[in-house]
Amino acid sequence: MQIVKTIEEVRAIVRAWREAGLSVGLVPTMGFLHEGHQSLIARSVADNDRTVVSVFVNPIQFGPTEDLEAYPRDIERDKALVEATGGDLIFNPEPEEMYPPHFTTFVDTTETTELLCGARRAGHFRGVCTVVSKLFNIVGPDRAYFGQKDAQQLATVRRFVRDLNFNIEIVACPIVREEDGLAKSSRNTYLSTEERKAALVLSRSLRQAQAAVENGERRAKVVVDIIADCLKQEPLARVDYIEVVDLDNVQRVEKIEENTLVAIAVYIGKTRLIDNFIWK
Amino acid sequence: MQIVKTIEEVRAIVRAWREAGLSVGLVPTMGFLHEGHQSLIARSVADNDRTVVSVFVNPIQFGPTEDLEAYPRDIERDKALVEATGGDLIFNPEPEEMYPPHFTTFVDTTETTELLCGARRAGHFRGVCTVVSKLFNIVGPDRAYFGQKDAQQLATVRRFVRDLNFNIEIVACPIVREEDGLAKSSRNTYLSTEERKAALVLSRSLRQAQAAVENGERRAKVVVDIIADCLKQEPLARVDYIEVVDLDNVQRVEKIEENTLVAIAVYIGKTRLIDNFIWK
Repeated sequence: MQIVKTIEEVRAIVRAWREAGLSVGLVPTMGFLHEGHQSLIARSVADNDRTVVSVFVNPIQFGPTEDLEAYPRDIERDKALVEATGGDLIFNPEPEEMYPPHFTTFVDTTETTELLCGARRAGHFRGVCTVVSKLFNIVGPDRAYFGQKDAQQLATVRRFVRDLNFNIEIVACPIVREEDGLAKSSRNTYLSTEERKAALVLSRSLRQAQAAVENGERRAKVVVDIIADCLKQEPLARVDYIEVVDLDNVQRVEKIEENTLVAIAVYIGKTRLIDNFIWK
Repeated sequence: MQIVKTIEEVRAIVRAWREAGLSVGLVPTMGFLHEGHQSLIARSVADNDRTVVSVFVNPIQFGPTEDLEAYPRDIERDKALVEATGGDLIFNPEPEEMYPPHFTTFVDTTETTELLCGARRAGHFRGVCTVVSKLFNIVGPDRAYFGQKDAQQLATVRRFVRDLNFNIEIVACPIVREEDGLAKSSRNTYLSTEERKAALVLSRSLRQAQAAVENGERRAKVVVDIIADCLKQEPLARVDYIEVVDLDNVQRVEKIEENTLVAIAVYIGKTRLIDNFIWK
């Protein structure tokens, strides 16, 4: 397992792999890797001859009031996890390597980014699309792996990959949860013991909603109310959004049909957590 | 020489070339090819094993009041010219092939697009950056060829290629002129006989400015005045802009030094023409 910091080094390594006829998977991450990331890496290792994991806390996807500085980092732990999972290369650039002076180009996609996190985090998805485009061009993978936990991000990546004709297969991997149901997230580390308990209300509310849908409920409004009622019972929780949308376009639907995404964002204290389920 | 209309066909042909170890050049055009385009194709043929010419009048780089419908087209003539020049493949897609339903992603770059044509043609360079990004991802060339006549476009392509880490060499080719000095352009076809004569004022004004610089004049303001005075003498000419800018950033400079671009846009009747020279 190698770790490199420059674009030139990544290119040289991938070029040698390509000359040897090897396939390449990419797992883009912001580091502080957990079992969710690990499932993406394991899937890439299974699908491809070589796997690149990028570890880069991307400044341009954080808003001015967001947690860029506080975002947790631990490259030594990340290295051990990537190595243990069978990854071949970590790309861990400095911000200056990715954003040189006079950096002025952005990839932006509308529609899928209008609602949910896109409506609340100005410029967030522009930052995501831009950095992922860069990583795609730097690594040139056959496949790239994204978690279903960031469902809007996944829909947005699929959209810009289609629109800009990137010749890369996007592979989605299911949400990985703690034993008690909390979706794995690097931001869970922000939670106090009390908040950690309170955070269970996210997955609990979604399980209740999903049970209702399994029992035949199809009205989005009713499903939203079930979730809202459940979240209300937790004093530390403050709802950011509860949305029922089409999985591809991320536009609101009134009826829950195939490919519907039920997504929530909830503040637990000062920490904003997201979770979702998909009705296929 | 082949001509294809779908992305899938281009990909299959280029993949076969790649498997045979061949290098690939791309010449993106809007068709109605003239000797300017031909010089780009000839250069690509000289540099690469295979040359792809895209012929696509890109709707998203035209403003609502611009000449999208009127833009001249002649695919049979284009085909003959590409074949005669040694090109291997024309990619000539329909707009629907490039812009499917729910197309919502754009590549945009600031700074190089603020002045000159960027200030006058809202959304023009966003359309250029988006379609060129798509063509780069569809063809995956080693090198791509652009004319120095569209100097701001060239600076803008260089910028977004650098910023988004496209692994493609951008090759600039000099302006090709008619014997009397008029820069070759598909839009020259709009000119009446009288306008065609009047249009010579563009290259004449630039020659006068260039002579002044060669004689030691370094003040941008003086050079602009020389051009303005010359253009004033032609009653059919109406100045759109006269600018002296840095060639890389396309920002105004007061002193003419290395890598200065002197660029003009002038209406001759209803036809907007551009021309420029570079002081190295």
